[in-house]
Amino acid sequence: MANESKPEVAVVMGSSSDWETMKRACDILDQFGVAYHKQVISAHRTPELMADFAHNARKNGLKVIIAGAGGAAHLPGMIAAQTTLPVIGVPVRSHALSGWDSLLSIVQMPGGIPVATTAVGNSGATNAGLLAVQMLSAFNEDLASKLEDYRNELKEKVAESNAQLV
Amino acid sequence: MANESKPEVAVVMGSSSDWETMKRACDILDQFGVAYHKQVISAHRTPELMADFAHNARKNGLKVIIAGAGGAAHLPGMIAAQTTLPVIGVPVRSHALSGWDSLLSIVQMPGGIPVATTAVGNSGATNAGLLAVQMLSAFNEDLASKLEDYRNELKEKVAESNAQLV
Amino acid sequence: MANESKPEVAVVMGSSSDWETMKRACDILDQFGVAYHKQVISAHRTPELMADFAHNARKNGLKVIIAGAGGAAHLPGMIAAQTTLPVIGVPVRSHALSGWDSLLSIVQMPGGIPVATTAVGNSGATNAGLLAVQMLSAFNEDLASKLEDYRNELKEKVAESNAQLV
Amino acid sequence: MANESKPEVAVVMGSSSDWETMKRACDILDQFGVAYHKQVISAHRTPELMADFAHNARKNGLKVIIAGAGGAAHLPGMIAAQTTLPVIGVPVRSHALSGWDSLLSIVQMPGGIPVATTAVGNSGATNAGLLAVQMLSAFNEDLASKLEDYRNELKEKVAESNAQLV
Amino acid sequence: MANESKPEVAVVMGSSSDWETMKRACDILDQFGVAYHKQVISAHRTPELMADFAHNARKNGLKVIIAGAGGAAHLPGMIAAQTTLPVIGVPVRSHALSGWDSLLSIVQMPGGIPVATTAVGNSGATNAGLLAVQMLSAFNEDLASKLEDYRNELKEKVAESNAQLV
Amino acid sequence: MANESKPEVAVVMGSSSDWETMKRACDILDQFGVAYHKQVISAHRTPELMADFAHNARKNGLKVIIAGAGGAAHLPGMIAAQTTLPVIGVPVRSHALSGWDSLLSIVQMPGGIPVATTAVGNSGATNAGLLAVQMLSAFNEDLASKLEDYRNELKEKVAESNAQLV
Amino acid sequence: MANESKPEVAVVMGSSSDWETMKRACDILDQFGVAYHKQVISAHRTPELMADFAHNARKNGLKVIIAGAGGAAHLPGMIAAQTTLPVIGVPVRSHALSGWDSLLSIVQMPGGIPVATTAVGNSGATNAGLLAVQMLSAFNEDLASKLEDYRNELKEKVAESNAQLV
Amino acid sequence: MANESKPEVAVVMGSSSDWETMKRACDILDQFGVAYHKQVISAHRTPELMADFAHNARKNGLKVIIAGAGGAAHLPGMIAAQTTLPVIGVPVRSHALSGWDSLLSIVQMPGGIPVATTAVGNSGATNAGLLAVQMLSAFNEDLASKLEDYRNELKEKVAESNAQLV
Repeated sequence: MANESKPEVAVVMGSSSDWETMKRACDILDQFGVAYHKQVISAHRTPELMADFAHNARKNGLKVIIAGAGGAAHLPGMIAAQTTLPVIGVPVRSHALSGWDSLLSIVQMPGGIPVATTAVGNSGATNAGLLAVQMLSAFNEDLASKLEDYRNELKEKVAESNAQLV
Repeated sequence: MANESKPEVAVVMGSSSDWETMKRACDILDQFGVAYHKQVISAHRTPELMADFAHNARKNGLKVIIAGAGGAAHLPGMIAAQTTLPVIGVPVRSHALSGWDSLLSIVQMPGGIPVATTAVGNSGATNAGLLAVQMLSAFNEDLASKLEDYRNELKEKVAESNAQLV
Repeated sequence: MANESKPEVAVVMGSSSDWETMKRACDILDQFGVAYHKQVISAHRTPELMADFAHNARKNGLKVIIAGAGGAAHLPGMIAAQTTLPVIGVPVRSHALSGWDSLLSIVQMPGGIPVATTAVGNSGATNAGLLAVQMLSAFNEDLASKLEDYRNELKEKVAESNAQLV
Repeated sequence: MANESKPEVAVVMGSSSDWETMKRACDILDQFGVAYHKQVISAHRTPELMADFAHNARKNGLKVIIAGAGGAAHLPGMIAAQTTLPVIGVPVRSHALSGWDSLLSIVQMPGGIPVATTAVGNSGATNAGLLAVQMLSAFNEDLASKLEDYRNELKEKVAESNAQLV
Repeated sequence: MANESKPEVAVVMGSSSDWETMKRACDILDQFGVAYHKQVISAHRTPELMADFAHNARKNGLKVIIAGAGGAAHLPGMIAAQTTLPVIGVPVRSHALSGWDSLLSIVQMPGGIPVATTAVGNSGATNAGLLAVQMLSAFNEDLASKLEDYRNELKEKVAESNAQLV
Repeated sequence: MANESKPEVAVVMGSSSDWETMKRACDILDQFGVAYHKQVISAHRTPELMADFAHNARKNGLKVIIAGAGGAAHLPGMIAAQTTLPVIGVPVRSHALSGWDSLLSIVQMPGGIPVATTAVGNSGATNAGLLAVQMLSAFNEDLASKLEDYRNELKEKVAESNAQLV
Repeated sequence: MANESKPEVAVVMGSSSDWETMKRACDILDQFGVAYHKQVISAHRTPELMADFAHNARKNGLKVIIAGAGGAAHLPGMIAAQTTLPVIGVPVRSHALSGWDSLLSIVQMPGGIPVATTAVGNSGATNAGLLAVQMLSAFNEDLASKLEDYRNELKEKVAESNAQLV
Repeated sequence: MANESKPEVAVVMGSSSDWETMKRACDILDQFGVAYHKQVISAHRTPELMADFAHNARKNGLKVIIAGAGGAAHLPGMIAAQTTLPVIGVPVRSHALSGWDSLLSIVQMPGGIPVATTAVGNSGATNAGLLAVQMLSAFNEDLASKLEDYRNELKEKVAESNAQLV
């Protein structure tokens, strides 16, 4: 956990092999000083653990859940089915089908149970962290202000990167 | 239920709109005189019902479960995660993406939790029924014999269908 | 607008032809009593209007933006680029390529600028409305409670739908 | 063969290059103590051998057949056409099209002749082995019990894997 | 049969439902006066019939075989596996996946057993007929001359079709 | 800048990581002696810079704009939305989805705002440079003549390349 | 022909069945008062006509060529191979594969021979017309001014379309 | 050329970079003692050379043409448009899109102009060689007999390959 306060965000993933991708979400939360809880929870191998986690998420003070998984990626959707907190799904790139399977099995949720899906792979994980911060920022002026700073830094990097066009 | 005996097969589906497809599995079970239980169980809307169903499946005497769903189709995989009975998954054709989403989110299960996947749509449902009968037939000579008859009928229909090539 | 209070949610879309899809998001917001603003804003035909809308969104009291578009769907990502509020993107089903283009051009955002993407078409629009409510619910117990009720209704409908399996 | 008893499972594959994938099915059968027969049988290069194998499978005491192949993968479907035993098809990842061809030519069987398809590549081969064990377990309490143990081990590994999130 | 002479071409298809497509191949053969044999032969429902047909094709005087099928379309490849005559495969458009499955399961044959694949659907069937005529024309000047005439008619139709651009 | 004259072409790209691809467009412009301006401009990180660039493009003397981007590639379309100069879009190959996302989000523009799209990756960048030269050549006989020479060199290379078939 | 002046644009298509799509390009040219020549030219049925057309295009005063075709759409690329004028390719939506084949066979040109590709179907044809006008506008202030007007009309339609959100 | 006799087969390819793939077709022709001519001919860079080659193919004694190309692969179809000899098209695997573009732009030919398409990449090239031999074999008993031998060798290799399953 990056921060001593009670976590408002959880970052869960279906396998420790997803950590290489999902740590990018944690990096963002660290950078914004948002406390989070991280854990491997498998929809298929630990369905009861997943159900407990999801059912208790709101009462445990969480405000947003980030869930990453690959292949037939059921974790984000199944957590979403068991909490009414917003769930952000990160399609981890799969070996065989490059993440097409991960993307479709996360984003194509039926009406009633949404999952906020980000891009396949690393940029999706980074953006999941940012999206969580943005959700919190709607009720937290300090985070809103930090997001402005973050965007300004992105702008500055673009200007600097022109030096590399040689 | 097509048969007074205790069901050895269950046919479940994520929504009543899947029935148009899934009834083809039931037609096959009726045709082979295999008792079955049919029910709408939604992974996303009734996850506890799904968990109960799956956990009790073996002790309730089931030998095979057929599960059909469309879109981000988590039902077959999530039932498979909560029972060690064989689970057959039928990808129901989705409106927007024609079943590519259903197929990938059913078939691409991670190592450890298999789902026996059939074709997208009607032929997949028919084949799910047949696959269940074939699994039972390995331990039931009567069903094995009926399957031989069924195959012979398929052969005869091919011969007859030549009359339609005009 | 469904509600006299100052809107916390905006529902924007690239073309009036997207309304058939996007009205499902508004239906959800109406159902939950969440005030919203709806408008056609085109990334390609009205880029200045889009920029103004996005830059002023937070100061106008919005907390979440829902944006729907089809084809080379740039509206959600370009609004996201110009606000730090959370933006939910709905891929509207396109004629030629069935929404594959809409989905990829919304979900595959680069690291730094997230869009919370939902499913292609109607269920995606419904879920965009729900996702907005869920984001607000993290800071609004009344909405959290209504979401519980909504989920319970979904459950009940599953039970009732068994009657249709004939 | 992993076991002195008469094999109840056969693991066949279209080419020796499929062994790298298919050995994962054999590993599972070894682990569960299920006797199996393994062999290269090519639908295209040895169609008569395939026909003989399939026609005699049931009378040779087999209960389940696992068949892996890549590209225009006809082996699982053509074996299924010549036996009424359940056939599990494993789409081996192809070089050019990453297994999309293998997957579709195995899973999209016409109504009448089912193939129980698993995921593309290694996890599909592992799951083919497990699926065979699960089919047998419906009539074998010892295997059912071992499957419970296997699942419990999967659960434990999830808990342990949290240590790797650093 | 379109012609009293001994057929040099066979047009076979997996199901009578493929006739709507495959008759276009026969139309071409009729138009060029090439004798042909047409028949429903199913790889999956009549594998022995298929094997007999393929094994005897050359000795029965056939020079080319046209085979059409849809979905997991194994007929062209399995005939090709059992004859050394050239086999032309026509991917019939499938309902669920629009013929992507038919195309890949016909064209992606492994090295050693070729199938000459044409386009999905009607134009593929027309072209299968033409391809058969072209193969024969390499050894038949009359057919070569008729092919020239056919091409000239195509050219003339292009000129005439300009009248329709209004 | 390759040439002292006022640039008629601009080559812009969403990130410095696109330079590896986009430099091929600049190589062509250098080779034809066409003055150009090159710059990193990000639709998502620097939307105001993009708007300024596009709005002033024509008055700054530009005649064609080449824009390359990957993933949810909005740069070409959003520049096209803010100028009436012709915009050439180059889909840069993305890591996860191999450029399918880049291609669709550039080419599938709605009626009203065109983007002239070239191939994914290096050959697309080369061709973007050539396409810009060809557009200018319609009003510049010197460039038209150089294009003839370029084509003749391509022809000669084909003849020479036969030596490599060993 | 929409205009008495010598045409600067040609609109060609592979078949009269493409006219339903391609007339949208002509509508735009009519609307902007740009003289054009329209004709059915088939790469496959009239290759000599195509070669003559392309070789003479520049000397006949053409400045831009618009070419539409579907399926294995070779017309735009083969014209581009035989002229150094800019060629705009419109992928006409194909029956079987929805235009995926048309798109890829037009846009994926090898380095050296560019085709400026627009979207699949109607919006691509409209945009081909606009792109031609935009190319000419770089050297024609009157067209540049008309393009501004056209864009302003698009903007106004967006504002008006809000009335339809009910 | 592998053989002193006048060639009955030509193996042409769009670029010398295709040789790595296409040499597999030549290997087969060498193995069967079939004389062939090999040459780089580019549809896009040398369209006149292609037209000459195709128009003279039949009178030069060719009986079959094998053409390989990648990306927007127009060579097989454009040769087919300019000869009535059978043309076999080999989709060479492309870098960006793995050969999906090559496959579709070769196989999806319009009714009237067929191309006999084989698999993407190496196995497609091998099979193109075999398909040419099979076409000739319909009128050449020696080749028919060699094809039988070739098939028998394939069979024997299958048997031997069982030794590798360890």
